[in-house]
Parts: sequence; C-alpha cells; structure tokens
Amino acid sequence: MRRYSPVDFTRVQLTGPFWSERLETVLTRTVPSQYKKLDENGILESLELKDPPPPLRVPFNEHGFTMQYFWDSDIGKWIEAAGYALRHRRDAEIERQVDEIVDKLEAAQMPDGYLNLWYQGHEIENRWTNLRDRHELYNIGHLLEGAIAYYQATGKRKFLEVMERSLDHIRNTFGTGDGQKRGYPGHQEIEIALIRLYQLTGERKQLDLAAYFIDERGRQPHYFDEEAIARGDDPTKYHFFNTGNYEYGQAHKPVREQDKVVGHAVRAMYMYTAMADLAAELDDDSLRHACEVLWKDVTTTRMYVTGGFGPSASNEGFTTDYDLPNDTAYCETCASIAFVFWAQRMLNLELDGQYAEAMELALYNGVLSGLSRDGELYFYENKLDSDGSHRRWPWHPCPCCTMNVSRLVASVSGYFYSVGPGAIAVNLYGGNSAELELDGRRVRIEEQSDYPWSGKIKVSVHPDGHGVFALKLRIPGWARDGVAMLNGNPLDVPGQLQNGYLVIERDWIEGDVVELDLPMAPRRIYANPKVKMDRHRVALARGPLVYCAEQVDNETPVPDLILSRDAAITETPRADLFDGIVTLTAPAQSIGSDDWGPDLYRTTPPAPADTTLTAIPYYLWANREAGPMQVWIREG
Amino acid sequence: MRRYSPVDFTRVQLTGPFWSERLETVLTRTVPSQYKKLDENGILESLELKDPPPPLRVPFNEHGFTMQYFWDSDIGKWIEAAGYALRHRRDAEIERQVDEIVDKLEAAQMPDGYLNLWYQGHEIENRWTNLRDRHELYNIGHLLEGAIAYYQATGKRKFLEVMERSLDHIRNTFGTGDGQKRGYPGHQEIEIALIRLYQLTGERKQLDLAAYFIDERGRQPHYFDEEAIARGDDPTKYHFFNTGNYEYGQAHKPVREQDKVVGHAVRAMYMYTAMADLAAELDDDSLRHACEVLWKDVTTTRMYVTGGFGPSASNEGFTTDYDLPNDTAYCETCASIAFVFWAQRMLNLELDGQYAEAMELALYNGVLSGLSRDGELYFYENKLDSDGSHRRWPWHPCPCCTMNVSRLVASVSGYFYSVGPGAIAVNLYGGNSAELELDGRRVRIEEQSDYPWSGKIKVSVHPDGHGVFALKLRIPGWARDGVAMLNGNPLDVPGQLQNGYLVIERDWIEGDVVELDLPMAPRRIYANPKVKMDRHRVALARGPLVYCAEQVDNETPVPDLILSRDAAITETPRADLFDGIVTLTAPAQSIGSDDWGPDLYRTTPPAPADTTLTAIPYYLWANREAGPMQVWIREG
Repeated sequence: MRRYSPVDFTRVQLTGPFWSERLETVLTRTVPSQYKKLDENGILESLELKDPPPPLRVPFNEHGFTMQYFWDSDIGKWIEAAGYALRHRRDAEIERQVDEIVDKLEAAQMPDGYLNLWYQGHEIENRWTNLRDRHELYNIGHLLEGAIAYYQATGKRKFLEVMERSLDHIRNTFGTGDGQKRGYPGHQEIEIALIRLYQLTGERKQLDLAAYFIDERGRQPHYFDEEAIARGDDPTKYHFFNTGNYEYGQAHKPVREQDKVVGHAVRAMYMYTAMADLAAELDDDSLRHACEVLWKDVTTTRMYVTGGFGPSASNEGFTTDYDLPNDTAYCETCASIAFVFWAQRMLNLELDGQYAEAMELALYNGVLSGLSRDGELYFYENKLDSDGSHRRWPWHPCPCCTMNVSRLVASVSGYFYSVGPGAIAVNLYGGNSAELELDGRRVRIEEQSDYPWSGKIKVSVHPDGHGVFALKLRIPGWARDGVAMLNGNPLDVPGQLQNGYLVIERDWIEGDVVELDLPMAPRRIYANPKVKMDRHRVALARGPLVYCAEQVDNETPVPDLILSRDAAITETPRADLFDGIVTLTAPAQSIGSDDWGPDLYRTTPPAPADTTLTAIPYYLWANREAGPMQVWIREG
Repeated sequence: MRRYSPVDFTRVQLTGPFWSERLETVLTRTVPSQYKKLDENGILESLELKDPPPPLRVPFNEHGFTMQYFWDSDIGKWIEAAGYALRHRRDAEIERQVDEIVDKLEAAQMPDGYLNLWYQGHEIENRWTNLRDRHELYNIGHLLEGAIAYYQATGKRKFLEVMERSLDHIRNTFGTGDGQKRGYPGHQEIEIALIRLYQLTGERKQLDLAAYFIDERGRQPHYFDEEAIARGDDPTKYHFFNTGNYEYGQAHKPVREQDKVVGHAVRAMYMYTAMADLAAELDDDSLRHACEVLWKDVTTTRMYVTGGFGPSASNEGFTTDYDLPNDTAYCETCASIAFVFWAQRMLNLELDGQYAEAMELALYNGVLSGLSRDGELYFYENKLDSDGSHRRWPWHPCPCCTMNVSRLVASVSGYFYSVGPGAIAVNLYGGNSAELELDGRRVRIEEQSDYPWSGKIKVSVHPDGHGVFALKLRIPGWARDGVAMLNGNPLDVPGQLQNGYLVIERDWIEGDVVELDLPMAPRRIYANPKVKMDRHRVALARGPLVYCAEQVDNETPVPDLILSRDAAITETPRADLFDGIVTLTAPAQSIGSDDWGPDLYRTTPPAPADTTLTAIPYYLWANREAGPMQVWIREG
C-alpha cells in the first residue's frame, strides 16, 4: 500500500541556515552533553548491575512507581541519537562511549536473552509480570532503535545481535501459541522498532511480532487484567484507571475499533505510527482506515495550534474535544515528535499534503520549542501561555524528551523527501543537497533557500541520464497563492496541484531549475469557537512558524496586549536576534489600567493605551530573560 | 463617636411590594420550614444529651472536624429569626417550639454555667481546650442573639437568664486576671452578641467582655499556640495554617494592626462589625481607623460586583488582591450578610453614603441570591458564572447561611432609617411606614414607592408638633442626576448633597412631601483591569440590582453571548415573571460556531450571529430550569 518511501537522512545534506544551525547544535552540544547527563544522573551506572543496587536516584512516587523503570530506554535513545550523529561524522570518543555501553549490555544479558537493567538489578523474580506499567517492552524498543542506528553508522553488529537475542526471547515468551503469554506493551514503542528492524533485515518474524502486539492490544479477556490478577493485584486499582478502562494506554479496545484519540499522548502517537507502518507493509486497509479516522479526530478536535498534543498533566494526555487550555497545556515534546513520526507514515501512504503540512507544523513549533537555543536546556511541557514561571530545565527525572528531540533533529533531513514510483516529492523546504535514487536512477536535487525566513526557493535538478519522472513540490495550504517557474517560465500552480503538491512531470535534464515563491505574509489564525480558551483571541503565523509574544520584546505586559482585528502586521528581519530571524510587529493596545484610580468598579470602560506588539517564533521563546508569553493574543 | 443609630425594625412597616414579598415569604415559609429541617437533621435531638450520643449525622472530615460542633449556633440563629418573626406577629406554635428548646437548654446547662451541647454530649472533659477550631464561643454568641430576640418578642426572660449565666461562666474563665485563660473565639461572633446585650441592658460588663475579645485577639504569645501545646497538639499542624500564620481567623496580629482583609470571610466581617460597634460605643478612634482601612481595602481590591466576598472555597475566604474568579466564586451568603452588618455600623458612625450604598448592593444581590423565590431553597455559594450545574439546595451539612438570611430579611426594615441628633436619614428605599423618635419627638414617615423597580419615591412627613430637623435622603452614586421636589418645588440636589445624602433641614409640618426621581437607566459596570477574570466583560445593573443572563431567558447559549459596547439596553417590565420584575434586553451577538465546519483552526474569524440578550436581576437566578448563568458578559 505504501506508495512512497522516505529517504535516508544521510542522503540529504542540510545547507540552509535554519536547519544547519539546529543540526550543528545537536551534534556538537546536545548529544555530547546528554552522555554527561546520563552519567551524572546514575543512568549509566545502572549498566553495572551492582549487588546491592545503589540507592534510587528517582524515588518511588505515591503510586509505587519510579522513573528508573525506563532508564534502559534513555540509554537506547541516546545511542540512537549518537548513531545518527556518527553517520554525519565519525567521532572516536562517542564510538568509545557507545561501545562501552554495548559491552555492558551484552555482559548483562541473561542466557535466555532477557535484558532489563531494572529487573535484573532489583527484582528479577518479577520479570514479565507487569507489562502494563513497567516498560519492559518499551525499553527493548528504544534499545533496538539504538542498535539499528549504531549498526547503520558503524557497521558494528554486536549491539544488534544482543537485541536480536532479546527479541527471540520475547518472541518465545509472548504470542498466541501454547504456553505463551498473550501480552503486549503497556507503553507502545517496540512496534516501531521491530518494523525498522524488518526494514533493515527483511526478516518477516520481526514484522510479525510488531503486528502481533498491535493486533492483540485491547482484546478480551484483557491481558492487563489477567496479569494483575496473576500477581495478586486488583486490576481496578490501576492508578491511570480514571476512565474506567484502559484508555490511558489505548488498550481499551482493539486498535481497529478505536476512533477517538485518547489517553497518554506519546503512547497514542507511537501506536498510530506503528499502525500506519503496518498498514503500508501489510497492505492492511483496516489499519489504514483506523489511522485516518484517528488522524481526523485529533487534528479537528484535540491539536494545539503549535502541533502540540495532550492538554493534561494528570495523564500526560488527552481529555475532551476542544479542551485546549493554554496556561496548563502539557504538550509534551515527545508527543509532537511522535506525531511527526506518524505524520510521515501517513504522508507516505499516498502523498497527501495535509500530512506533510501537519508534520511541518509540529516540527517547527511543538518539537523545536522543546530544545533551547544552546542545545542543552529542555522543555518537557510546551505551554502556550505562561506567566513567566515556566522555564527550561537542564535535565528531568523523566528525560525522555531530551534524547527524543536530539534523535529527531539529528535525522531531520530524512523527512525532507519522499520517493515513489516515477516521482520525487519535496515535503519540507530549507537549503539542501540530496542524492536520491528513483527507479534505479540517481537524481541529485539542490535546493537553495532561506526557508522558513523566506519563501523564495530554488530547486535545481541533476538527473543521471534521461527519463520522465514527476517532481512534486509541496505547496502548503497557507501558500496556495504561491507562484512557480520552470526554467524562468511561469507554471500553472492551481492547475498542476495534486493533493497539495505542485506536480511537474517531464523528462528532466541537467540544470533544470524550478523556482518557487511561497507567500510568507503574516497570517492570523482563529480557533473554532468550541475551543473556549481561544475565543476572542488570535494566533499569528508566518510560513510554518507560529509566533508568540514574549515579554522581553514588549513594553506592555503581554497579558495586557490587545491586537485589533484590522491592525497591519509588519515583518521585521532582525539580524540581531538569534543569528537572524523575522519578527512580527503591529500597532496594538494595552488594556490600560493606567487611567484607573483605586476603584474596583466603574461605569466607564478602561481606556486602552497605544502600544506595539512584537512577536517572535514560538520555538524560540524562553531563551532570554524570564517573562510572560502568549501564543493566543487577545483580539479586540 | 456614633452619631447615628439604627431604628428597631418593628418601627418600620414594609408596604412596598419588593420587600413585603420577601418578608412574607420568610415569615410564612422560611422560618417554619427551618424548624422542620432542624428537627429532621438531628439538630434538635442534640438538645437531649442522650447517653450514649446518637451516631454522627455529619461525619468527621479528613481533618477530624464535624460541623456538628456548631449546631448550637444553628439553634440560636433560628430562635433569633423566629423571635423577629414573632415581633411581626405572635404565633403560638412558634412560641411553643422556642419554649421547648429553651427548657432543654436550661436543663442542659451545667451548674457552673457552661453550655455546649457537643462537648456536654461527647467530650465534656475537653471543654475550653480548643477555642481555635471548636466554635464554643461562637455558639454562645448565636444563642445569645437568639435569647435577646426572643426576649424582645415575648418578654420571656428564661433564655436570656440562661445565657447570662453562661456569660458569667465565660467571664470567669477568660480574661487577663490571675488563673484566667487569655482566650478568644476562633470564630468571631460573640462580640456582636455581647454588644447587643449591652445595648439592651446597659450592663457595662457585657461590653467589656466584647472589648476584651477584640483587644486580646492576635497578641503574642499566641493563645492558639498555647492552647494547642496544652492539649498536646502541634500548633503548626493547624489545617488552615496555609498562610503560615493565623490569618484564617484574623488572629495573625492585633486587630488594630490589621490593614488587609484576609482569611475566612464570615469570621472577618463579623469581627469588623464588632470593631465598628466598639469604636462607636467606646469612642475608640484606633478601632475606627482600622475599620476604615479594612473597608477601603476590601471594597477596592476584594469585593465582587454583587457585594459578594471570599473567592476561595478552600478557606471560605480571601486570597489575593483582584482575585475574583466568577465560576469558582465562593461568596458565601453569610459573608454578604455579615458585610451588611458591618456596613450598617460604619454608616452610623458618620452617615457617609458610601457605606449605605455598599450595604444596599450586598443586600439586593449577594444576600438575596442566597434564598430561593419560594423561601425554602438556598445557595451557600453565590457564583457569578455557572455552567448550569450550580443549583440551590434544600439544606446543607453547614446550614449557617439558611438562618442567617432569614434573620436578616425578617429584620431588614431596621436598615432603612438612621436617626441622629436633629436628623432622620433614609438609607434604603421601598414603600414603608415608619414611626420614628427624634430627640424625644415622634415623627412618622410614609414612603410610597415601587423601588427598586421604579426610582419614583414619595416621602411624606408627619411630625408630632413643630421643630426644625433635617431629613436626609440618600442619593445613590448611580443616581446623582436624580431630581427632588419639596411640596412640588424643585430642590437643588447637587447643592444640598452632603456625604451622599440630600439634606433638607426645615421646620417640617404635617403632610410635607418630598418626591424623588432616581434615574434607573440601565448601566454598564466595568471592573478594574487588574481583575483579570472580568477583562473584556461588562456587568449590567439597574438601580441597586445587578443583573445576569440566565439561559432560560436566552436562545443563544449564555457563554456565547457578546454585547457590543454601543448596544442600547432596554428596560422591559415583565408582569409575567416573578410577580413582576424589570428585565434588561439588548441586541447582541453570538460567538457563532454556526459558520464553522469541522476545522479546528482557520484564518478567518468566526462570524458572529445576531441575537438578543435578556438579563434578569441576579438575585432571582436559579429559580427556574437549570442552565448557564453569567453576571459578567463578554463585551465586543
């Protein structure tokens, strides 16, 4: 069913300033500093399996849960990011660090293949007794993705072999056969990793295991009930049981029957990613249909304008339709990252531009906001309104988002292109040089642009020999007035638009040039009035970037700003800010308590004072002095 | 210091429809039904002192507290309301009910005068060990007010004598003398009752005890600490200790040093009432100054537009300046009632109209909203915004508000007039016939009006003989354009205005008539922008009544209503509603999700739809079918 495939990120070299800077920061600062953090926070020490184990670094919470249960996943995710970094440029120090970890993992692995540092260090007798809460399969998933990335970077197979033994053990333990447990992960992730391994090795058993986990999920009698009873627990005492079912982990019913995006946002998005992958690999229309229903649900009722997901801290996830509070938004960075994964899979099913547009939205906003400018500070929660107290942290008891953002940025160029039969699709823009393969031919694409700051994009095509193929250039929904030229001759953009892509099919020859001019005029975004929190408010955007008003750029207290509906919004290039960005400014009003005396009430309204609103791209907020921030600005 | 005195409510007969209806409802429905509720809920049974005591009707909460601790106060408050009812018209059945209660109280009283049904029934060994939490002195205060009222109604002294013995016991137990505890009430109230007893009997010792309680409050070493240590408790474990001090009960510092209105709202208002009383009785400028500072503080930073007080349920009280949330407003009915008490005392210090205006505001809105139209359902919390789930209840585990509203309405005519040397002041309007005494003379005042529905007021003066005196007619702040005529001749209202009162000094003769025409045009009220919750919102008022939009009168969902700033507001007499009221209507807009498809976001704003806004007086809401209600309406 999959018509298109992504392109390995190593084939696309980023040359434009926007992504070059983010990539370089992640490679030179984020990845190395994360190894130090893993070390300082005792996570690497857990590889030693000391007896007795060292005291907990992250104490049990009131539910008897410690985030150390999933330290293995942090190790795996860091190796994945490090592997991607090594594919950009080999680095002996990083390789030594990974090799040392892999040696310890190999040494730790039990003869039967079981591998989980928490259980092996603390309570091996309880292994595989609580898939619902304890992340054993989730951890293996992230370790496996790390092993794949490290193998791809170095050709070293040891880690991959450790993981293959672990998977054989898991395959023996879980399944529908006699004597097997019909279990599946409480936190989905391993499904994605298994599909990646299948794509690497072609081994059908890896794909089958992923499909088993997805197919088994949510069936009755419920495995989570059964394993709880088996270990002597009351299944109803599950502390994320507040919905009266297993919605928290999307195990409340079989996945093909799910039509509402519910529960823990990252679990949900990882599962949908795997479902879309399986739909493509297995040509499974029922999974594809479920994905399409869930996609429509989340993007029309439960998505923040920044491509953030999950309003609630209490379940790190979804609540009710149109419940999108700004100041208490949870919007975990990992959820936006996982959405990017899902969107990419949906996009490659049939190259529908809506998926690329949502992917780009989340990437430039909800994802990038999670990493500081200097690459060493993080947001776990990406609020859309802050009184100034919400700040980036250098590490977190649950450091999942940190390595998630580094692995995504380190491989971001892999999201730029898709290749399908007779077609090359450009999904994301930003200067780059791509060496692609199309139906056995090599095609080099060079893109010159300063996207997203400018909408002027020049794409030159360098095919290896002759032959007709389609170049499909995505025209974002906000750029439908864009113009395009082929070798200086205007193209009929509306006439050549298919599913959001400008399709140019021809016998491309060396040096053919397509020029795009995507209109980058600032635009106002309004939310459906059912989103009560955003009523009478407006968000500003320019290109793929959502903007916010941060106090440091504004004289008027940000919560006092009022933007009138007809105020002209000016784009202002600011070379002095963040190596050069475009800010948005507009004449605005301040709610004006200046003309109020001590009265609490009076019969004349407050007289607004004239002021100026300055907005910066949302992803850049909280990199300077602390202060209030708002994405949704009062419109009056 | 007190220049003016209130007039006993029996001297003022209500003849206007507004207050006649409320009074009649309270006398015929509320007071009798409350006796039944006291009986049904086990409160009267507590008079029996059964051994063993019956099971708790109100279980201990998580702090080891039961609201049964203050059942005595409910009995006292009902007798006070019943006493007022009997002063309107004797009723053998009510008298029999009260006499029976009094006999039981007399029988229960211990030889040393101690009287508290909880302690005597459950844990007499612990009496007087926890003034902070256990309401012993508060209970005596309410019983005493009941005894005074019943004596005034019937001339029967038995209850009063029981209470005098109880007070003698308290006087022996508490004070600054050797062997005395330097205690004072955790919940203020007894101070007001003692001053009333002093005003009835002239016994200075009652006034002195009230003054002692006020003077001792908040001194160091702190009595609440000492008594906690004495009973083996940790004083810092006080569950209302969240401010790190005794602000909850206004015992964080001596009362004269208090300059912020803090803590439990009813406790605060009762204390300020007693402070203002003592300032007058003792000519105490320091207490008066403290009251003025606290008055200014609360009315400029912490008062709802309805005359409600205390935004927070967690402490039933105050939080921070300008924190006046509408949907979570606590605004206990008792707090507005207690504010009326305080305002009356402040008013009578020097007849400053600002106090009468605030008193009227609270009375017509925050107080009256607490009682249903039928007189048998109650609000404990008077929210200013509801999604429709907030409804009136027939009774409450803490029934304080129920008898508080009945005792106030039953005696409301006592707030209409003040008399001072050479002056009669009309503070509140509404048809009535008053028999007043002024400097030894009798003056009858007849007021004909349909206030607050109409601002046309006709006051005729019937003095007993000749002599100059001033008639002072309050001109509310919203009626400064009002016109007045004396015997058909126009008066110079601005020229004769003193402290908010139109002063007419003359040798009044039989049949002199003053006619007032107070403009009742609807007005828009805005809140100081520091009240974030009310920004971009407007409240509507007409005369002393604050209005609200209730769903049952509106086609558009109330939260969707938008009133444009220049929309004309029409007064509509509605004979069909609540025996005749005036509603306010205006052309308005609905936020309009009608024109939205399934999109969550788009670049064009929602198109408002035309609709009509209908508002009713706030005090009448929640007497019909359930639905959303808003006082503060979106202005756009």
